[in-house]
Amino acid sequence: MRTAQSKDDGALLVKPGVPLTTSVWQHRHVLDLDDFTSAEIELVFHITDAMKEILSRPIKKVPTLRGKTVVNLFYEPSTRTRLSFELAAKNLSADVVNLSATTSSVAKGESLIDTLATLQALGANIVVMRHSQSGAPYLATKYTTANILNAGDGWHAHPTQSLLDLYTIRDHKEKLKGLKAVIIGDIMHSRVARSNIWGLTTMGVEVTLCCPPTLLPAGLDKQQHHFPRVSIEPDIELALDGADVVIMLRLQLERQQQGLLPSLREYIQLYQLTESRLTKAKPEALVLHPGPMNEGVEISPAVAHGPQSVINEQVTNGVAVRMALLYMLAGSQKQ
Amino acid sequence: MRTAQSKDDGALLVKPGVPLTTSVWQHRHVLDLDDFTSAEIELVFHITDAMKEILSRPIKKVPTLRGKTVVNLFYEPSTRTRLSFELAAKNLSADVVNLSATTSSVAKGESLIDTLATLQALGANIVVMRHSQSGAPYLATKYTTANILNAGDGWHAHPTQSLLDLYTIRDHKEKLKGLKAVIIGDIMHSRVARSNIWGLTTMGVEVTLCCPPTLLPAGLDKQQHHFPRVSIEPDIELALDGADVVIMLRLQLERQQQGLLPSLREYIQLYQLTESRLTKAKPEALVLHPGPMNEGVEISPAVAHGPQSVINEQVTNGVAVRMALLYMLAGSQKQ
Amino acid sequence: MRTAQSKDDGALLVKPGVPLTTSVWQHRHVLDLDDFTSAEIELVFHITDAMKEILSRPIKKVPTLRGKTVVNLFYEPSTRTRLSFELAAKNLSADVVNLSATTSSVAKGESLIDTLATLQALGANIVVMRHSQSGAPYLATKYTTANILNAGDGWHAHPTQSLLDLYTIRDHKEKLKGLKAVIIGDIMHSRVARSNIWGLTTMGVEVTLCCPPTLLPAGLDKQQHHFPRVSIEPDIELALDGADVVIMLRLQLERQQQGLLPSLREYIQLYQLTESRLTKAKPEALVLHPGPMNEGVEISPAVAHGPQSVINEQVTNGVAVRMALLYMLAGSQKQ
Repeated sequence: MRTAQSKDDGALLVKPGVPLTTSVWQHRHVLDLDDFTSAEIELVFHITDAMKEILSRPIKKVPTLRGKTVVNLFYEPSTRTRLSFELAAKNLSADVVNLSATTSSVAKGESLIDTLATLQALGANIVVMRHSQSGAPYLATKYTTANILNAGDGWHAHPTQSLLDLYTIRDHKEKLKGLKAVIIGDIMHSRVARSNIWGLTTMGVEVTLCCPPTLLPAGLDKQQHHFPRVSIEPDIELALDGADVVIMLRLQLERQQQGLLPSLREYIQLYQLTESRLTKAKPEALVLHPGPMNEGVEISPAVAHGPQSVINEQVTNGVAVRMALLYMLAGSQKQ
Repeated sequence: MRTAQSKDDGALLVKPGVPLTTSVWQHRHVLDLDDFTSAEIELVFHITDAMKEILSRPIKKVPTLRGKTVVNLFYEPSTRTRLSFELAAKNLSADVVNLSATTSSVAKGESLIDTLATLQALGANIVVMRHSQSGAPYLATKYTTANILNAGDGWHAHPTQSLLDLYTIRDHKEKLKGLKAVIIGDIMHSRVARSNIWGLTTMGVEVTLCCPPTLLPAGLDKQQHHFPRVSIEPDIELALDGADVVIMLRLQLERQQQGLLPSLREYIQLYQLTESRLTKAKPEALVLHPGPMNEGVEISPAVAHGPQSVINEQVTNGVAVRMALLYMLAGSQKQ
Repeated sequence: MRTAQSKDDGALLVKPGVPLTTSVWQHRHVLDLDDFTSAEIELVFHITDAMKEILSRPIKKVPTLRGKTVVNLFYEPSTRTRLSFELAAKNLSADVVNLSATTSSVAKGESLIDTLATLQALGANIVVMRHSQSGAPYLATKYTTANILNAGDGWHAHPTQSLLDLYTIRDHKEKLKGLKAVIIGDIMHSRVARSNIWGLTTMGVEVTLCCPPTLLPAGLDKQQHHFPRVSIEPDIELALDGADVVIMLRLQLERQQQGLLPSLREYIQLYQLTESRLTKAKPEALVLHPGPMNEGVEISPAVAHGPQSVINEQVTNGVAVRMALLYMLAGSQKQ
């Protein structure tokens, strides 16, 4: 593999206005990982390495995106993800404005398309977008010259979460290829699970999905031939057997009222990741969670804060991954 | 006309701390256009030209207002105008803080006067202010040494919107003098209309107001001798006849409940700007709208997105005009 | 007293990355003034002097905290204090993000401890924290490596308000030692009063508390031996007698519904600071109020805006004191 950016020439990253030129990276937008090659994901890793080095400096700020405008357009509230993008953009010296649909005229019936036209006219270079409707960021790309960075759309995709998960795993394991990962929880409603299925399998990871049948996407069992590296195992102890990586999902407590869970107590009994269950995985297995956790529901406090948990590292890596993506998209802009 | 700033010495604009010295510009505040001379408006145009050049650069940021504090004090929600001012200030390297009266202690009975005293004591240099009460920015100037920039007060005035409208028209037409503009819609409740009447007539534009009698400001027909360049024509096709510029206004849908419209259907029938009606205007006539539009109500989608629409240009020019005004006010500050 | 920073070497302050090295300053957090020595408070004064000089410059911005992240974590709304910290941090070139618990996922049950872990992982260097629970900032220090700056916790403490009060008094009086201060109003519910009792007595000021018995903290009269410099005097005219400094407290109007006041009218009659009552104090006595004022309740408009009022100076000094504290905490960080 050939990358234009490597750990060695990270200096390039701090030069404002220097576009990213590489034959590997083809994206003007980051919408999901289904169209990412392993070479592109590796490139994200390399640039994230450089960003992490910047974050370790006493003055963790570089002028790379000076004079660029990043808009956080959030149609769903999300403090963590919004803060992570805001700090990533500020570390790169971009100007950041936050636009929350719940407190803005966007809420009063202005269409997504009109909002994007306005943001473009106002000078937005990159629009970080969260939306409750699956596919909204795809629509967005048709109506703006700004780069769209999907920060989560409906149940569909959350590519930056998956990239930070992949980066965190790579940080601990020699290589991703050949690892066994298990994703446990509410697969059906999880954009994190969907993007991770693409990201993990692209990098050669074997993926096991573990959840009650009511929380499995309809028809997934019949489409499995599309994902030869993905298997389904409803029994948590069997699923964990020999795993290198355990990715827990947040259980939305309202799923119970929707009749998708018999009871919270039963869910905990069958699917909570406990210390004793974690022993079924490999001794060095990593525990990941996108946060915020329901401690005592999908994960026990002892595991959440235990020695195998890399949950706080995920948050830190998230800032670095988002810096890398903002940089890579800005580099792809038509000057 | 003599201006201290011209396209040629735009370089001045990027020098922080260089005050604007000109005998043309007399304003410490921008409250409305009724006290603007045509020379002052031309000066705004010239400085806006320089700001547009900055916006066209890869790094659209200059240090002109570095170390100055701009406060966006919004007593009415407005995402577009707030974002436009926020980006304008950030492009000039000012520090910007947003203060929304709906989410702040301002809402809990602190008076406007106390708030202004506090903002001044906190170090605010320029206060961009939107208020639902007509005249509030005038009151404000009496209680602060900060420069006040009116971002819309009640039904009264919206000078930055008018200046960006004028600038957008000038961008397309050789000169403003002698043009014919028609303003169509809810004149009575429109601060955009009021400021545009001042701005357009000052620049020598003939203005026709077109609306149902219930949406015409009371008594305007009898005061017309004050505005020799303004006429009233309730018939939209007659009003459009020979127009160079068509300024559409947003119809607040609650006007119907207030009994000011017989029905939305009838309003659309009588006052919507359609492609066929637009043919009554000159072939090169421009269509403006302050946004956000009610497409299908006051304007048809075909016109809104048609070749004569300059609505997105208005948004871009709005950032440049606001940069110019922030710069000009900062230059007028007592050092 | 020996201080590493003095007015003379204020230049040190503008060098980014230069840590504060002094044997006087021992704090990694600012939680209350009960553990501040008079030498530490004097050091805050000296550094605040340097910050005020910066605020008087045409370009009031220094790169001292460039590349540092300050988070305003507010579990209670407070426009003034939040703005003051935001501007203080921006004047020092820090990146600032605001996190309001009322509009964030923090509100949806995420614990304070989890939020702090996330903020640390996101790269927060200093967390400015307001919380309705007394003691919350103390808990916070146990769960983060970030510096905690208490911006008010319950009824307990508001150390930056007290430091700005002390600084404002020192600005007008030769020295603090030996002055007589009276604090008037709702002592029981006032974190401002509590922190000022610590701060004033540490600096050698004699303090008189004046309030109705129902608004005096229970048991304070019996614990008075702990505070030999504090006395209680319910009669406002006796309390004011010979005072150098009058600190008024805001009366929360809901205290009446809680049965703690017989009636607002009676409270005004007995405890409002009027011009005639103020004559009982020394002729040069200063009047302070933390704001926002209920003019006509605890303070008459004539006194609030009279020649002895230093209320607006308090706001300006608040920005400078907070700049000093942010600088001092950043200097104490483990590099």
